[in-house]
Amino acid sequence: MNDRLEKQLRFALEADKEKNIVRQTLISDGSRRENDAEHAWHAALMAVLLHEHSNEKIDLLRTVTMLLIHDIVEIDAGDTYAYDEQAKLSQRDRETAAADRIFGLLPGDQRDSLRALWEEFEAGETAEAKFARTMDNLQPMTLNNATGGRVWRERGVALHQILKRNEITGEGSRVLWEYARDKIITPHHEKGNITD
Amino acid sequence: MNDRLEKQLRFALEADKEKNIVRQTLISDGSRRENDAEHAWHAALMAVLLHEHSNEKIDLLRTVTMLLIHDIVEIDAGDTYAYDEQAKLSQRDRETAAADRIFGLLPGDQRDSLRALWEEFEAGETAEAKFARTMDNLQPMTLNNATGGRVWRERGVALHQILKRNEITGEGSRVLWEYARDKIITPHHEKGNITD
Repeated sequence: MNDRLEKQLRFALEADKEKNIVRQTLISDGSRRENDAEHAWHAALMAVLLHEHSNEKIDLLRTVTMLLIHDIVEIDAGDTYAYDEQAKLSQRDRETAAADRIFGLLPGDQRDSLRALWEEFEAGETAEAKFARTMDNLQPMTLNNATGGRVWRERGVALHQILKRNEITGEGSRVLWEYARDKIITPHHEKGNITD
Repeated sequence: MNDRLEKQLRFALEADKEKNIVRQTLISDGSRRENDAEHAWHAALMAVLLHEHSNEKIDLLRTVTMLLIHDIVEIDAGDTYAYDEQAKLSQRDRETAAADRIFGLLPGDQRDSLRALWEEFEAGETAEAKFARTMDNLQPMTLNNATGGRVWRERGVALHQILKRNEITGEGSRVLWEYARDKIITPHHEKGNITD
């Protein structure tokens, strides 16, 4: 029993490193960038709040669990900015190696089930994964909106990049995608915070 | 529909302020204190990893949801350190007023259900709340252990204080409490990081 528990606690302690992985997104008061642990918490909370808007009925615990672990591979692989096309080329290889090592800290049954849940999130094909990815995209959009589009402006993000990234957002929730498009993206494009 | 969604997103944006509420606990590399958002994520993740050790069978989604929101009142009420007896006297009043305001941002049905879940966590009487509180106590203990008991040492925390706070930890999980007592608390007491 102690061996099993120690593996679980070892993984939990390893996960703590997500608190040092800084993302591009600013927190809502604009004072600093957020980290992966904060992002995962916020996206999981948003899934609890917004799951009624999912296109399909979902098992909310599966979606929330996916969101809690979805970025854990970045402990080894680093955060790959959504609009860094160069880094995205090697992203899958780096993240697969990270998943092998990090999920491998767990007892075998949990290694397999949590790894499978992470792969499910990555594939984005089930209703739960689609909604999780909608949260993963919507959460930073609401923060970028709260900070006056500053990150989009500073990084020179173009409308076509945002629309491409968000092709999957509407697959999880048509309602949330239309809201984000009409109330966040379009106004920031019109103001010039998002380029053509 | 938009009115409902806007209330939900308003609450989600308000919750973002948890990222600025700093706790006493250091993150595992000792570089800085963690904040409420990070703590909530970590405790929720630990619930996913460790729920098999609950004394009673639990609805894991309820426990995880409790953990995601359990500190949201600290946006107004501030973090009350577990061993600050003076601040704890006014804690309940400050937190009740905060709950009125913050959960009040939500649509009525969600205001009521999430407020009830927060009250359930606070009361600590259901199996789900007991296990959530076990996570809420175990998570900082594992970090204090990882950082060599530094926070206990710096704050001069005494064994009887830790044992009093953790009276409820065993109610959620006897296995986890005995592990924490024997593998974390007792060794740090023996080393003098926790005073008599």
